[in-house]
Amino acid sequence: VNGNTPPGRPVVTFLTDYGTADTFAGQMKGVVLSRAPDSALVDLTHAIPPQSIAAGALSLSTAWRWFPEGTIHVAVVDPGVGTERRPIACRFEGHFFIGPDNGLLSGAFGDRMVDEAVQIELPGMSQQPVSQTFHGRDVFAVAAGMIAAGSDLNDLGPTIEPESLVRLSFPAPDITEGVITGEIIQIDHFGNAITNIGASILPAGSGPITIRCGEISLGEIVEAYAAVEPGMPLALFSSMATLELAIRDGSAAERYDLHKGMVVTVEIDAEP
Amino acid sequence: VNGNTPPGRPVVTFLTDYGTADTFAGQMKGVVLSRAPDSALVDLTHAIPPQSIAAGALSLSTAWRWFPEGTIHVAVVDPGVGTERRPIACRFEGHFFIGPDNGLLSGAFGDRMVDEAVQIELPGMSQQPVSQTFHGRDVFAVAAGMIAAGSDLNDLGPTIEPESLVRLSFPAPDITEGVITGEIIQIDHFGNAITNIGASILPAGSGPITIRCGEISLGEIVEAYAAVEPGMPLALFSSMATLELAIRDGSAAERYDLHKGMVVTVEIDAEP
Amino acid sequence: VNGNTPPGRPVVTFLTDYGTADTFAGQMKGVVLSRAPDSALVDLTHAIPPQSIAAGALSLSTAWRWFPEGTIHVAVVDPGVGTERRPIACRFEGHFFIGPDNGLLSGAFGDRMVDEAVQIELPGMSQQPVSQTFHGRDVFAVAAGMIAAGSDLNDLGPTIEPESLVRLSFPAPDITEGVITGEIIQIDHFGNAITNIGASILPAGSGPITIRCGEISLGEIVEAYAAVEPGMPLALFSSMATLELAIRDGSAAERYDLHKGMVVTVEIDAEP
Repeated sequence: VNGNTPPGRPVVTFLTDYGTADTFAGQMKGVVLSRAPDSALVDLTHAIPPQSIAAGALSLSTAWRWFPEGTIHVAVVDPGVGTERRPIACRFEGHFFIGPDNGLLSGAFGDRMVDEAVQIELPGMSQQPVSQTFHGRDVFAVAAGMIAAGSDLNDLGPTIEPESLVRLSFPAPDITEGVITGEIIQIDHFGNAITNIGASILPAGSGPITIRCGEISLGEIVEAYAAVEPGMPLALFSSMATLELAIRDGSAAERYDLHKGMVVTVEIDAEP
Repeated sequence: VNGNTPPGRPVVTFLTDYGTADTFAGQMKGVVLSRAPDSALVDLTHAIPPQSIAAGALSLSTAWRWFPEGTIHVAVVDPGVGTERRPIACRFEGHFFIGPDNGLLSGAFGDRMVDEAVQIELPGMSQQPVSQTFHGRDVFAVAAGMIAAGSDLNDLGPTIEPESLVRLSFPAPDITEGVITGEIIQIDHFGNAITNIGASILPAGSGPITIRCGEISLGEIVEAYAAVEPGMPLALFSSMATLELAIRDGSAAERYDLHKGMVVTVEIDAEP
Repeated sequence: VNGNTPPGRPVVTFLTDYGTADTFAGQMKGVVLSRAPDSALVDLTHAIPPQSIAAGALSLSTAWRWFPEGTIHVAVVDPGVGTERRPIACRFEGHFFIGPDNGLLSGAFGDRMVDEAVQIELPGMSQQPVSQTFHGRDVFAVAAGMIAAGSDLNDLGPTIEPESLVRLSFPAPDITEGVITGEIIQIDHFGNAITNIGASILPAGSGPITIRCGEISLGEIVEAYAAVEPGMPLALFSSMATLELAIRDGSAAERYDLHKGMVVTVEIDAEP
């Protein structure tokens, strides 16, 4: 048994671009349960836009911390499946992350160093042959099932340097002369626009502030959607603790034609 | 431990308007598993139309009874998140219900009295700060995890009066001079129209009957979809034991432009 | 207890045309957990096109083998619900299959014989009345819960002849004078076209080959999507080990207007 998983029931999460119409996610779960029948299986999402590694990394970043220590996160957005991109497994802050080494997993660890990383080679496995198109099932789910069943990372393959893992760089907001310039990084199911402007760089007090994005211009950050009248725009802090633009009881994305990548500015202490 | 949960594995269900493209539902499950790793987690649906409390209540009403006693149902359709609407947890017929006090949970108990209710205050919790937008994760999933781990309702916060819970009133069918007048309350995935006309108020026998809704006019209630030819309209009893209008192997909603709120009449013992 | 389930946690899978907007799948799971609370519940898919028995059978065929021996697969695409089509449960290669006897389950066993089959009659059950529209909940989930709780197939109802089960015939590719003629049997979430041309009937070597479908003409079977440039078409082996037509990082179905039933030919050893 690995020394890293706390005793108790293993938890395995799944994040893919597989959709839910085919049985791909189900097949992965069958493979995990074949090796670790006691696992709790949780879908993070299977609706990552096809091949969108950055979108997958962002979704992983929002979710993994809410799971118990020892959780095994399998993430597969894998346009390079079947090529020499490395299949990897790593350990970071007590969680396990398994997937292709294409930057997807860096949604969890960002530019920090993982504690341990291996290249998955599944030595000595007497498995069905590995498909050329579905490593989610034939490599990553197998690896997850092995960890869930108590294997060490080292049982999956040789150690690799944590520095060697592919990392995505996410756009960081710019702060120049009292103006924060960030961008919309995600439109959620409600049509709320999530930005990359973290709460920590925004003023806590009640001085004058102007938030602009497309046609939107707002003079304050409110406490809740219901702080304004239905149909009115507002800015507040998202569940990711970043600035969010929304409409009460409506879709801001639809109303104001907001989309990923749009510039958002916050002018602080602007004189009237 | 609470005396109300039967011994055995806790079951937690989820009903929200969060969709499944974001990781919101996954984050809630991570929070529950962090406190009660042995839980069985079941999605009722995450496709409630955004902010549609009544639709959420109706979906909850169809589903909760099919779960074992002691099941914990977390329901979140919460346009008032972050305002003074109360977060509540209650016990009714041996099940637990957790969510905002905006009428959503009354889908389960209707106009009956719950056995016990508390306002969730999570006293003494050393948690991450509660977000302003995602009480599903930061309040309701925490409460569900505590109950699943054996806490009493009283551990969540102070008792409140069962009479004080917000209730929705659902439209009831009218019966006047041999004519039942009800309405369509839901269009299901197949395009079947579910009405609020319960089987118990319809005649059991085989006397003449006329069912009308929009362009539909039917002279009998049949036993199964396949009682008519493919493509033909029919009326039968839904899995909720109410009158349902359907087309065999097709979508009645599409063909006849049926929608929620449309009037349905049943004329009984009409002379020819 | 049945002698066929390996000791350990029962696994129950679900494949339906119910969608995920209604609570139908959740209700089925509640019924299973009421009888076998320890079960692991896995969705294969609920997105089978309404009433499409053949599509359901195909999806079942792709998924069931990846689950551990003893798994209970509940499959419900059931246009004949409430009529005299038989509800059945059977055992095949150590797995259990439960659903209507309309050919759906033959996705798993094809034209081979199951080891044991019964007609579900649920003798002696003191259940809520069986609905006319939702045997997924009132018959099949009950049967699955009973098997998961350790019942024998014989506890569900009388034995029936394995030969009597309804089977679908799937289109088989034709091989004439060095030309294989098959068809597209499924378009997956990525817009890849899965054919019925199995790897085993294709040449392993590197001789000349021409693959044609609609506007597509390809001269080789490659090892991975990334073997060609982004946006280019390719043929490779699918995760079902059949010929698949795809576009790297794109949707072949959209670009080439591919759809189920289109003819695919493979010309082998054609002289240039």
